[in-house]
Amino acid sequence: MSERVNVAKTVSGDAYEIVIESDFEKLAEEISKLPVEGRKCLIVTDSNVGPLYLQEVTEKITPVFSEVYAMQIPAGEENKTLNTVRTVLVKLISSHFDRKDFIIALGGGVVGDLAGFASSVYLRGIKFIQVPTTLLSQTDSSIGGKTGVDFDAYKNMVGAFHQPSLVYMNMSVLKTLPGREFSSGMGEILKHGLIRDEEYYSWLVNNFNEITDREPEVLEHMIARSCEIKAAVVEEDPTEQGVRAVLNFGHTLGHAIEKYMNFSFTHGECVALGSIAAAWISYKRGNLSDMEFYEIRDMFVPFGLPITLPDDADVNKILEISKSDKKMDGKKVKFILLKKPGKAVIDTTVTDEEMLDALQNMIIKLD
Amino acid sequence: MSERVNVAKTVSGDAYEIVIESDFEKLAEEISKLPVEGRKCLIVTDSNVGPLYLQEVTEKITPVFSEVYAMQIPAGEENKTLNTVRTVLVKLISSHFDRKDFIIALGGGVVGDLAGFASSVYLRGIKFIQVPTTLLSQTDSSIGGKTGVDFDAYKNMVGAFHQPSLVYMNMSVLKTLPGREFSSGMGEILKHGLIRDEEYYSWLVNNFNEITDREPEVLEHMIARSCEIKAAVVEEDPTEQGVRAVLNFGHTLGHAIEKYMNFSFTHGECVALGSIAAAWISYKRGNLSDMEFYEIRDMFVPFGLPITLPDDADVNKILEISKSDKKMDGKKVKFILLKKPGKAVIDTTVTDEEMLDALQNMIIKLD
Repeated sequence: MSERVNVAKTVSGDAYEIVIESDFEKLAEEISKLPVEGRKCLIVTDSNVGPLYLQEVTEKITPVFSEVYAMQIPAGEENKTLNTVRTVLVKLISSHFDRKDFIIALGGGVVGDLAGFASSVYLRGIKFIQVPTTLLSQTDSSIGGKTGVDFDAYKNMVGAFHQPSLVYMNMSVLKTLPGREFSSGMGEILKHGLIRDEEYYSWLVNNFNEITDREPEVLEHMIARSCEIKAAVVEEDPTEQGVRAVLNFGHTLGHAIEKYMNFSFTHGECVALGSIAAAWISYKRGNLSDMEFYEIRDMFVPFGLPITLPDDADVNKILEISKSDKKMDGKKVKFILLKKPGKAVIDTTVTDEEMLDALQNMIIKLD
Repeated sequence: MSERVNVAKTVSGDAYEIVIESDFEKLAEEISKLPVEGRKCLIVTDSNVGPLYLQEVTEKITPVFSEVYAMQIPAGEENKTLNTVRTVLVKLISSHFDRKDFIIALGGGVVGDLAGFASSVYLRGIKFIQVPTTLLSQTDSSIGGKTGVDFDAYKNMVGAFHQPSLVYMNMSVLKTLPGREFSSGMGEILKHGLIRDEEYYSWLVNNFNEITDREPEVLEHMIARSCEIKAAVVEEDPTEQGVRAVLNFGHTLGHAIEKYMNFSFTHGECVALGSIAAAWISYKRGNLSDMEFYEIRDMFVPFGLPITLPDDADVNKILEISKSDKKMDGKKVKFILLKKPGKAVIDTTVTDEEMLDALQNMIIKLD
């Protein structure tokens, strides 16, 4: 089994491929299509993924580079900081990396964002390869060139647009992915259907059993389709001047919920909740029928995603947090609504009252 | 008096203008051609330049932005670090800057490189304006989009290509520039002539009295011509994949001398010495006549630049430092030689012996 998606237009103009495989067998072959002869490589991984795959990946790529170095950062979003980037830079300097050497990010979104950012600033930019190992990073964060780190608890506040030279996915790593992380990936995948492709969205809902059973053929189709959607949006607008913002569907309030909950909810769980809020506002504005809204809300459930906020959630506080979020455009919040299932639009007229109403609607009072 | 140079092709595709004026009167007018309506601005300056021009610049631009903030970093290359970038980011966050707000770099190369880098990473890139106040930054570092900071004593090790939206120069600030800093700028300016324009190089040599007397008309012509040369090279190769490297003429050994001397020599002084070394190698290879070599060497003198190394200089140590320099391309040093005065070429065959010979030749033994 094997799929590939081409990303043709990027900021730098360099096209790259997303290769979807069921093992690491073709990794060296794919990498050797890049200008790697005589070049060094640093594999950046984390303390979760390193013990599982670092040895195998190192063995596979040793023949194609002149030297292969590896470093393991501590796992967890709390380590996605400038200080961790600094440790990567120190490693690159001490190993005398030059402009034409490579970084490989082996891991989930944290590793990819951080190693990608390090590669974008070292000597004003060296090449990097994404080898994403979670569903979330395979279908979302590894594509599109957004790199960065958190800063003073602000997510992705510091970063760069820096496209990978290759994205190589081994789907079989998903077999061992913890259930909650798998669900987190589904949050973004369902979003892809909702914002851009109603047929795909229906396919996801109809295949929830096969997907949650992680049947390889079904996963392969799903990952390829999500990569295509993500890549298509990114190609239209590599640096998010306009249409790329639709990928933030569910994220304006989702990020605020994530912060409000002190990151005790996963990213995908928060995207699910943010998507439901955005769908509610779309419904209230007459873009969705009530049946369409409830279908959207309820489809998150079989994928292990929440559809309610804790019953003591402070919706005013969540709103306030969302306003300090960087997605703000001047004074106006750039909100993504659904025009219909499968079609998202950017809207700058969403009011505080609409957002509070949407959040309130996700709190189930039992008394 | 007023000149302008257009930079048409950049990495991002956004063209920008270099405006050369003799005061700050047109600053607001030039800025207002950019999408600044309703936008905030942070002026980053340093403890040398702030006391001289911050108030005037702030007053001039207050009408065109919704809010104007300012911060002063401590002057000096030793503060061009990630930690200082961090202080700029904290200021941007605490002042709720969003993607469409602006940074203005008011100062010399350190301020421009550092503020430019902060603007390139904050929210993955916001706009910035260069207002360079030294001869070196007006004719060299403010043009071309190279931003960055030093890291563990490695110069510009961490950075980004990020083009300014506007470069505005007030030449009258040069009147108060200390003599040694003026000379430092002349190092790069003489380089511009040597690598690209023999006629300009001759003009510089013939006008050394007027230039060192800082006669406004002569400075204006000089700054404009140097900006044109720098901009032309940068346009051909925005991210230094090839020809842009000629701008590194004098820099391979110059940087090494700068480090060897613990930055007690200015950048331009080291570029002068590095240029003489490169000219020596070019002469030894038969590209220059002996008269051409001695002319090149001696022309640095009237501009206050050195042509000899301290007589106890350890040339082997300087060579060693140059080899840990980032301009290395794999194992080979990318050296810039003169094919003739006014024409530089990239060469990867320069040997250790040639470099040692060139360095040795700059030590005058008196006994």
